[in-house]
Amino acid sequence: MIIVKGGVTSAKGFSANGIKAGIKPSGRKDLALLYSEVPAVAAGAFTTNRCQASPVKISSFHLRAGTHQAIIVNSGNANCANGRTGEKDALVMAAAAAELLGLGSRMVLVASTGIIGRKLPIEKIIKAAPALAGGLSEKNGASFAETIMTTDTRKKEFAVKVKLGSAVVTIGGACKGVGMLYPELKTAKHATMLAFIATDASISKRMLEESLDEAIKDSFNMVSVDGDMSTNDSCFIMANALAGNNRIAGRGPAYRKFTDALRFMAQELAKMLAEDGEGATKLVEIEVRGAKSAIDARKVARKISTSNLLKCAIFGGDPNWGRIVAAAGASGVEFDINRTDVYLGPVKALSNGTIAKSFDKKKAAKFFKGKNVNIIVDLKSGKSSAKAWTCDFSKEYVAINSEYST
Amino acid sequence: MIIVKGGVTSAKGFSANGIKAGIKPSGRKDLALLYSEVPAVAAGAFTTNRCQASPVKISSFHLRAGTHQAIIVNSGNANCANGRTGEKDALVMAAAAAELLGLGSRMVLVASTGIIGRKLPIEKIIKAAPALAGGLSEKNGASFAETIMTTDTRKKEFAVKVKLGSAVVTIGGACKGVGMLYPELKTAKHATMLAFIATDASISKRMLEESLDEAIKDSFNMVSVDGDMSTNDSCFIMANALAGNNRIAGRGPAYRKFTDALRFMAQELAKMLAEDGEGATKLVEIEVRGAKSAIDARKVARKISTSNLLKCAIFGGDPNWGRIVAAAGASGVEFDINRTDVYLGPVKALSNGTIAKSFDKKKAAKFFKGKNVNIIVDLKSGKSSAKAWTCDFSKEYVAINSEYST
Repeated sequence: MIIVKGGVTSAKGFSANGIKAGIKPSGRKDLALLYSEVPAVAAGAFTTNRCQASPVKISSFHLRAGTHQAIIVNSGNANCANGRTGEKDALVMAAAAAELLGLGSRMVLVASTGIIGRKLPIEKIIKAAPALAGGLSEKNGASFAETIMTTDTRKKEFAVKVKLGSAVVTIGGACKGVGMLYPELKTAKHATMLAFIATDASISKRMLEESLDEAIKDSFNMVSVDGDMSTNDSCFIMANALAGNNRIAGRGPAYRKFTDALRFMAQELAKMLAEDGEGATKLVEIEVRGAKSAIDARKVARKISTSNLLKCAIFGGDPNWGRIVAAAGASGVEFDINRTDVYLGPVKALSNGTIAKSFDKKKAAKFFKGKNVNIIVDLKSGKSSAKAWTCDFSKEYVAINSEYST
Repeated sequence: MIIVKGGVTSAKGFSANGIKAGIKPSGRKDLALLYSEVPAVAAGAFTTNRCQASPVKISSFHLRAGTHQAIIVNSGNANCANGRTGEKDALVMAAAAAELLGLGSRMVLVASTGIIGRKLPIEKIIKAAPALAGGLSEKNGASFAETIMTTDTRKKEFAVKVKLGSAVVTIGGACKGVGMLYPELKTAKHATMLAFIATDASISKRMLEESLDEAIKDSFNMVSVDGDMSTNDSCFIMANALAGNNRIAGRGPAYRKFTDALRFMAQELAKMLAEDGEGATKLVEIEVRGAKSAIDARKVARKISTSNLLKCAIFGGDPNWGRIVAAAGASGVEFDINRTDVYLGPVKALSNGTIAKSFDKKKAAKFFKGKNVNIIVDLKSGKSSAKAWTCDFSKEYVAINSEYST
């Protein structure tokens, strides 16, 4: 596997566009389209929030179709808590793209991100759709990534190439989301994280769903900015088979290689989300080792990643490791604190449940003041591990979120 | 039931004291004692954190004894993550009080609050103990409440009197805790919330445990400052029978009256905790109505109370009600958003899942800018309700917690 420059249009046959439709009060780009020139199989993973936004419901429904060719996305409005009008608007939004592209409505998926509880300005979307579809180009991947941003400070895209047999498969993606970010995605059933992945791999719809499910467990579902689960979180993948590899239809070596590449890419995108979290000054990685199961490892890592107290301490460069211990203990996972070790980067803080004799607070404080903070918690009671990503908690986060809707 | 001025020494036969033992670097009072002149039955509820502090373990063990007469408490040090030394120190702390009071060791309960991972300065405690016990007085309830404070800005105490038959029973209490505050207490088995309640009611140990269990469900277990569960949370109650009421030994009217009074008092103390939350400028009450069960109502109310986004919006006086909907949906409770109503104080924001026609954003913003913010979420799918309490999320919270240990 190699990392290549690019994003949603890196894989063969994909084009994209992003334009200004007048949805955002700022006047920035807010309407985006991703298109595959041939029918693709698609999978989606959506928020498990009980209050799902209308586009989430419509995309879940549309995914029951066998093939898909486009995804239309707006930023600046979540189209959530808009009742039946919201659902109708999401359907109309998909239909507008479908008509211009000569596709059946259900071959188009739809996503929204922005403020909750305001009616989607569907007439603006309909008006802008012809220019949106008209400007589709394989050169506009970056424009797509830019258009889906809300409070993001930079666009997030990534691409890899992996060899399957004699064929070279490309997987490219883009994502957004820096607040109300604590995805708990479930595939094919039902984060405001939005992620769009496009690949030219040949793979069955069922195996694509399974591959996405595996990949998100260790990537998007392990990232948190504020612990607030969104109503709109969605992750989409389209696979159009243009790479010409032997079709992946079961759990063989090719499936494994593809899934490993997809997971790697999704993890890199997830880290970009955490690093650009609202008010963030640091990227924080929590690694839990020695857990009895992967589920336990993920639970402990994720609980630590959502500790407001720890995140404030990291903002201040204060190596207050007691907050790591308290958060781990609050995870609901059974482990023996008297066997547990904690490392703040290169500095061992806790050894078998008590402060490490070698603990050097000044060294730890220096490490905590850096741009990248990694914390390792070794439960020493099993062989499973997991990583979670978050950012520090700054005064700027409070500033951003105390005046968002006004 | 009437509210009276007072605290832990309001009930007959209780005395208390609080002194400076040199544990806090600030030099403030940090060692407290509560004493009943006659043997009392006691119950305790402790954190469900997997990493329990040493005093929690020792108090759980001591509670197996039939009667108790004293509780010794230090602030400034959590005595947590100190391994076997920590447990030995907690035992020695209880024993020091026991010896001076002429009691068996197990008749003394013990609690600590402060920073995690530093050895308890037990020699300072032993040295200060004679002065602590020597100064016991029924006039020192307020001193007790002051001594247990850490980052609290004010002492928290409350007392009520309730008539049981011809006897007047007094219930008085004190508590502390303004950060790392998200208690999940379990009685008799196992918050850094500390709460101490003293009553002169005559009640069996078993019924006292049940009464405490009922009371905390709707009080301490419904308060959150930051969602971070502590390693030290503890709630104690002692009942010394000096009021002379007919002994409560079953679930009759007297039990009900006593428990209602205890719950009311615990709720008032819980509100004081939220109102004095680290960096707090407002007290926030979340009421969930129309839930299918009390458990559902509590889950939804508590999830909303921990939304960082909502708490930031309340700090800024921004009536961003979409964040209430998103948090309710993330609670894991099944409900129909299309039947749900949301009120921001007197202003209806959501009506059957969509924005209320009468919604007046300016009026809502004015309400959100006040000192007391109450939010009502009516799920309209059942008859159960619950209240949760929290505070707003300010830049000051980040400031306090970014430099706590340094």
